[in-house]
Amino acid sequence: MSGPDKTIATLRSDLVPRLPSSAVTLFEAKKQKNLTFEAIAKKLGREEVACAALFYGQARASPEDIKNLSELLDIPQDRLESELSGWPDRGHTLDLPPKEPLIYRLFEIVQNYGYAYKAVLNEKFGDGIMSAITFSTKIEKETDEKGDWAVITLRGKWLPYSRF
Amino acid sequence: MSGPDKTIATLRSDLVPRLPSSAVTLFEAKKQKNLTFEAIAKKLGREEVACAALFYGQARASPEDIKNLSELLDIPQDRLESELSGWPDRGHTLDLPPKEPLIYRLFEIVQNYGYAYKAVLNEKFGDGIMSAITFSTKIEKETDEKGDWAVITLRGKWLPYSRF
Amino acid sequence: MSGPDKTIATLRSDLVPRLPSSAVTLFEAKKQKNLTFEAIAKKLGREEVACAALFYGQARASPEDIKNLSELLDIPQDRLESELSGWPDRGHTLDLPPKEPLIYRLFEIVQNYGYAYKAVLNEKFGDGIMSAITFSTKIEKETDEKGDWAVITLRGKWLPYSRF
Amino acid sequence: MSGPDKTIATLRSDLVPRLPSSAVTLFEAKKQKNLTFEAIAKKLGREEVACAALFYGQARASPEDIKNLSELLDIPQDRLESELSGWPDRGHTLDLPPKEPLIYRLFEIVQNYGYAYKAVLNEKFGDGIMSAITFSTKIEKETDEKGDWAVITLRGKWLPYSRF
Amino acid sequence: MSGPDKTIATLRSDLVPRLPSSAVTLFEAKKQKNLTFEAIAKKLGREEVACAALFYGQARASPEDIKNLSELLDIPQDRLESELSGWPDRGHTLDLPPKEPLIYRLFEIVQNYGYAYKAVLNEKFGDGIMSAITFSTKIEKETDEKGDWAVITLRGKWLPYSRF
Amino acid sequence: MSGPDKTIATLRSDLVPRLPSSAVTLFEAKKQKNLTFEAIAKKLGREEVACAALFYGQARASPEDIKNLSELLDIPQDRLESELSGWPDRGHTLDLPPKEPLIYRLFEIVQNYGYAYKAVLNEKFGDGIMSAITFSTKIEKETDEKGDWAVITLRGKWLPYSRF
Amino acid sequence: MSGPDKTIATLRSDLVPRLPSSAVTLFEAKKQKNLTFEAIAKKLGREEVACAALFYGQARASPEDIKNLSELLDIPQDRLESELSGWPDRGHTLDLPPKEPLIYRLFEIVQNYGYAYKAVLNEKFGDGIMSAITFSTKIEKETDEKGDWAVITLRGKWLPYSRF
Amino acid sequence: MSGPDKTIATLRSDLVPRLPSSAVTLFEAKKQKNLTFEAIAKKLGREEVACAALFYGQARASPEDIKNLSELLDIPQDRLESELSGWPDRGHTLDLPPKEPLIYRLFEIVQNYGYAYKAVLNEKFGDGIMSAITFSTKIEKETDEKGDWAVITLRGKWLPYSRF
Amino acid sequence: MSGPDKTIATLRSDLVPRLPSSAVTLFEAKKQKNLTFEAIAKKLGREEVACAALFYGQARASPEDIKNLSELLDIPQDRLESELSGWPDRGHTLDLPPKEPLIYRLFEIVQNYGYAYKAVLNEKFGDGIMSAITFSTKIEKETDEKGDWAVITLRGKWLPYSRF
Amino acid sequence: MSGPDKTIATLRSDLVPRLPSSAVTLFEAKKQKNLTFEAIAKKLGREEVACAALFYGQARASPEDIKNLSELLDIPQDRLESELSGWPDRGHTLDLPPKEPLIYRLFEIVQNYGYAYKAVLNEKFGDGIMSAITFSTKIEKETDEKGDWAVITLRGKWLPYSRF
Repeated sequence: MSGPDKTIATLRSDLVPRLPSSAVTLFEAKKQKNLTFEAIAKKLGREEVACAALFYGQARASPEDIKNLSELLDIPQDRLESELSGWPDRGHTLDLPPKEPLIYRLFEIVQNYGYAYKAVLNEKFGDGIMSAITFSTKIEKETDEKGDWAVITLRGKWLPYSRF
Repeated sequence: MSGPDKTIATLRSDLVPRLPSSAVTLFEAKKQKNLTFEAIAKKLGREEVACAALFYGQARASPEDIKNLSELLDIPQDRLESELSGWPDRGHTLDLPPKEPLIYRLFEIVQNYGYAYKAVLNEKFGDGIMSAITFSTKIEKETDEKGDWAVITLRGKWLPYSRF
Repeated sequence: MSGPDKTIATLRSDLVPRLPSSAVTLFEAKKQKNLTFEAIAKKLGREEVACAALFYGQARASPEDIKNLSELLDIPQDRLESELSGWPDRGHTLDLPPKEPLIYRLFEIVQNYGYAYKAVLNEKFGDGIMSAITFSTKIEKETDEKGDWAVITLRGKWLPYSRF
Repeated sequence: MSGPDKTIATLRSDLVPRLPSSAVTLFEAKKQKNLTFEAIAKKLGREEVACAALFYGQARASPEDIKNLSELLDIPQDRLESELSGWPDRGHTLDLPPKEPLIYRLFEIVQNYGYAYKAVLNEKFGDGIMSAITFSTKIEKETDEKGDWAVITLRGKWLPYSRF
Repeated sequence: MSGPDKTIATLRSDLVPRLPSSAVTLFEAKKQKNLTFEAIAKKLGREEVACAALFYGQARASPEDIKNLSELLDIPQDRLESELSGWPDRGHTLDLPPKEPLIYRLFEIVQNYGYAYKAVLNEKFGDGIMSAITFSTKIEKETDEKGDWAVITLRGKWLPYSRF
Repeated sequence: MSGPDKTIATLRSDLVPRLPSSAVTLFEAKKQKNLTFEAIAKKLGREEVACAALFYGQARASPEDIKNLSELLDIPQDRLESELSGWPDRGHTLDLPPKEPLIYRLFEIVQNYGYAYKAVLNEKFGDGIMSAITFSTKIEKETDEKGDWAVITLRGKWLPYSRF
Repeated sequence: MSGPDKTIATLRSDLVPRLPSSAVTLFEAKKQKNLTFEAIAKKLGREEVACAALFYGQARASPEDIKNLSELLDIPQDRLESELSGWPDRGHTLDLPPKEPLIYRLFEIVQNYGYAYKAVLNEKFGDGIMSAITFSTKIEKETDEKGDWAVITLRGKWLPYSRF
Repeated sequence: MSGPDKTIATLRSDLVPRLPSSAVTLFEAKKQKNLTFEAIAKKLGREEVACAALFYGQARASPEDIKNLSELLDIPQDRLESELSGWPDRGHTLDLPPKEPLIYRLFEIVQNYGYAYKAVLNEKFGDGIMSAITFSTKIEKETDEKGDWAVITLRGKWLPYSRF
Repeated sequence: MSGPDKTIATLRSDLVPRLPSSAVTLFEAKKQKNLTFEAIAKKLGREEVACAALFYGQARASPEDIKNLSELLDIPQDRLESELSGWPDRGHTLDLPPKEPLIYRLFEIVQNYGYAYKAVLNEKFGDGIMSAITFSTKIEKETDEKGDWAVITLRGKWLPYSRF
Repeated sequence: MSGPDKTIATLRSDLVPRLPSSAVTLFEAKKQKNLTFEAIAKKLGREEVACAALFYGQARASPEDIKNLSELLDIPQDRLESELSGWPDRGHTLDLPPKEPLIYRLFEIVQNYGYAYKAVLNEKFGDGIMSAITFSTKIEKETDEKGDWAVITLRGKWLPYSRF
């Protein structure tokens, strides 16, 4: 059975050229320590998705995150500080449209329901956007008699267009 | 102020060529009756996003939906039955990548967090995808001292890859 | 001489299919009345760029804007209200990359200086973005012995990435 | 907090293949010396954006710039002269459309307001373009009770189309 | 004659950068042992296509698969476990549209008959999709007086769209 | 429930510009007569997919097909002869990649398993391709305790590369 | 022989949707009057290429041009003034890359010699560009024993990059 | 001032993967010897653009060119002969559309004036193309009170379409 | 059987927007008269492919062609003269890459054998190209015991690159 | 003169990443031995184009081909057997559309005459395609008083569409 068999996420070699060097360092230590993002998130006091995003170079590590990661993953703190210095350069991991079936499904939701979301959001909030920056997201697992369900929550600040 | 001022969502003329003819019929009646998707959703007993998707031709109307829409919008039932016959041909409303800023933000979330979602979902559920078909979604509004927050929930059945 | 000879901006017929029907109504009245965006902006109490964006369907008209436009352009107010109802569907006017030489130059500035802007903004403000929604922009004209200079100012709220 | 915490901009390894070798030399020395572009700009007597552009290979260094950079960054002058010889080959750092959220916002401004800028510029200046070559740009930070604001100024010579 | 002359499939060097490192390990051992996917499939108790997909990093190996591959291919089990750890990152091997003539023909079938499949599937099953995840596929060879025929069977669970 | 509720496939108005005029004629008559492709296939003695392809202009009608369609759909035979004259111009109905979720799943199968199919086909048949011309395909429905399964069979002549 | 047989350039119907309405007016009158661009250029005192560009909506007509065109082509002056009002919206006539063989050859020259032009221009003029705005171009015909030669001259102001 | 300060054109490291190995050899020697293309062109008796094209692998070196380059640049003749053997594989240096601002301007000229060139060339020469093969080009510098002007001449054989 | 059953080629309605109006006129008359391109070619004294290209607006009609077409197809000569005036605007009929299976096969030959053709042509003729302008092409049918064979001949003048 | 001066085709370094490793081995030996494809074709008893395609990894070598290549090129037979094992992965050498001018001309022929070929082939053969698999091609050189002519012959089996 190909189920949730304690297998942890690792870094596929073919994705490396699109990632900052910190991704290799972090994922290798994660593999060595055999840690899930759940365990890492607990240590960092952050959401699992945020931790995974940090590993892929899509989110920023605070000084405290670096200290925690250094402890948990046995990576010298100054090496982490150096590799995680600067500012994330986001958005380069993905093909357009996404080719990975799991990620494509998320894209397909936007593709099919994009205008429906817009219509409902505009009616509920007015002219503006849901911020993807002042934003958080999480994944939850629900199970019922029909099987498992993934529940992804997106929560963003509503930003009305400025009048000028 | 460009806020939630009871303005309802209508159909922009430049989107018409990408939509089935039912979209024009439905949106014109909605405008005539000055109804929000919230009111329509209440009548149909469905989520607002599902109703909006139905208007944009991205979801299917059941015979009961058609009856309810006919009553609520004063459209002859046989006209609705005819225009909503057949099966939705989904996915054509959107540019790739989306150009509309509100929809782009949703796409950007997939672009930035796609691999993070995948890593966490794989660790939590195993090898598979979150279905975008056995799936539901809704929008909620939260307000706190910082302003309004849009909360979008995506809930999909987990489908493990078959072994063969 | 092809200078600023009181020629006003009108709507090219080949752009019409990408625009909402309000654009045709507004531009035709503008041509009839021979009004510049400067004159329109004075009446509406808004920036010229915002007025032009409103004409192209890229910004929203407030009820007061509609009243003012109706008066200034001699368009029945209910016609304007109907055509400008709903929410702008932005971003569809442009080719990617832009083909129009004037607009291409703006794109080229982003293309050449994009990472430089990012580096300086990150150092000055931290990890985040300059909002294009809580945002205003204006154009000014300066003249010196070398000729005319266009000065475009972009002013956006800084949005730091949420920690989650 | 992910604020302006004296973190300096460094070079992400995944961007290196799109940059001239000088970018690596300059950014490594910048990191070693822990210098902001503000400090570098002061030394060179240039705008911060111009300095960052020079680091990314998007602007040219004058002999005096090279001397100043050599002193400030402790890089042998002849090495800098050799690596910065020749002429910049601009425009290759960016995806099209930009994927990085911060840079995308700048692009989105062009996408949404492009035709509005064109209409207003044509009315103010006639038939022509704002030069992106005889051009300067700068970033300023403003703070009010609502938070921080980024102000980007673009200033370009107006070039009327030649009649021939 | 360039027929089925016991030549086995090997890995072309130009495809390597798009594949996980496990692909190189597995294909090299396959070449060394001179094994067809038929022989490998027999050992693993899986379909040939599934085995080939596993080699290309498009399907997941169970612990038992790894044990069997280790025995059959003389690869140390822990090396295989390490290289096949994590979750497949699917979909990156192919150009869009496919350039390889054999694979293009499969794509062409979708291109030409896509809407015909949709119409017939909708009529037979209702509004939904055939799953590509709860899915299996196999290849059979038939021979008659006209020559050889390839028969590819695709079998997927029907997933009706959820009503919400 | 959105199941196989005797709803027949009709032609969406937004697809019309990509289709020959015969598609409109045929689908309108099909809707009028409320016929499934199953019924049409029985009359014509062809596979359902072939009939649907014929309706979409992706397959050719023989003189006998035209006679049968004329009788079944009450369309004057000479009108059908005229509209179905000439040769199909195939392949234009689809976006690349397909946006419709049902059709995308078929494409995804090619995307994920393309090289696996090639490897197994080459080992079984030698150097060549499976013809998409000397080719047939059909859809079958299977039902077990888990639900419905769609089974698509592709059967093509194997064409070895000529030696020259 | 398909030589320079006094055939004049007319407007192909399939290009019309990409052009402003003035193009149709001008080309129809040109056809009616059977005038070459040489004759038109003589009347207007402009280069032939500039005249053709004006017809295609790629250059601006001065008031005097409009008067001359009105006389030469027997088009009411106020109709021309109205259709040629506003500012050219350039660049939309062409596919990318150009498909028309004659235009492709011009593009191919840029494709093959682009970097060579840049290297020589940089060495001769420094860091900058040749303006395509402060610019003129003309076509000449030379004939020798080998046949006819087309000579296209591009003359643009050199614009050095501003230091800032 | 960033003017024509005797800086010679060198090879940017990021362009190397798109060029044949001869480009590296030639540009390194050019840098070592500090030679302009003007000097090289004088030695070879060819146009500067042709010499630069030769360096970028876009033109072919004759045996005499190789001898001259060997002498001028102090490169062993057999090394040059080996690296310049075979036939140029042209056209790969450029992005589409070009991103480099200088080269983009040349492309923009084709984009804006392409159909105008075609109309005038057809009227002057008949149905055919200007050859980009039986072709030469050169750059000249003119200076007047307004500054410097770049003059690029394209001269190609006119090829009429064959009648068949 | 779907063989060469005296069916003539007609114009599919979905291709019309990409073609000049003459294509509609010519194909309609061809259908009315039930003429093959073989018959038309005999009348015009041209190759069948050239005649078909003329119908699709990809080749030019001489005055004598127009006279012959007028007689053969019963189209008033002045109507043909008017619709066929001007110069062909070639290359717009095709998708890139071609989607039509028959045309894709021709493209695939270029895709697979392109570099092989180049290598052999360079060795046989030197540095240059085979002209697609001073060019003719024809189709022949051969039949042997294995079935029918299509033989397409391309014959183009060799154009060596000019030395300059 | 840049004519057919006994220069042989070699492998450009920038094409290597798109080719199997066998291409490097074969082209290096060809250069060492200074052999044309004409000489190689004579040894192998195959067409020159087929030999070049084999070198570029676009055609398959038979055991006898390998033996002959080993003898002619002095490459150990087992090395060739190993590098040429497996099945060609075709189609990856080319840009889309092709940038190389010689190859572009071949593509342009398909682009301009594609529908003309289709119309004539359909009329001559019925509904089907010319196979690019059961296919051969050759290049011949003709010389007359006007110069050299390249004649490319494409010969493919006609495959009628199956009726199903």
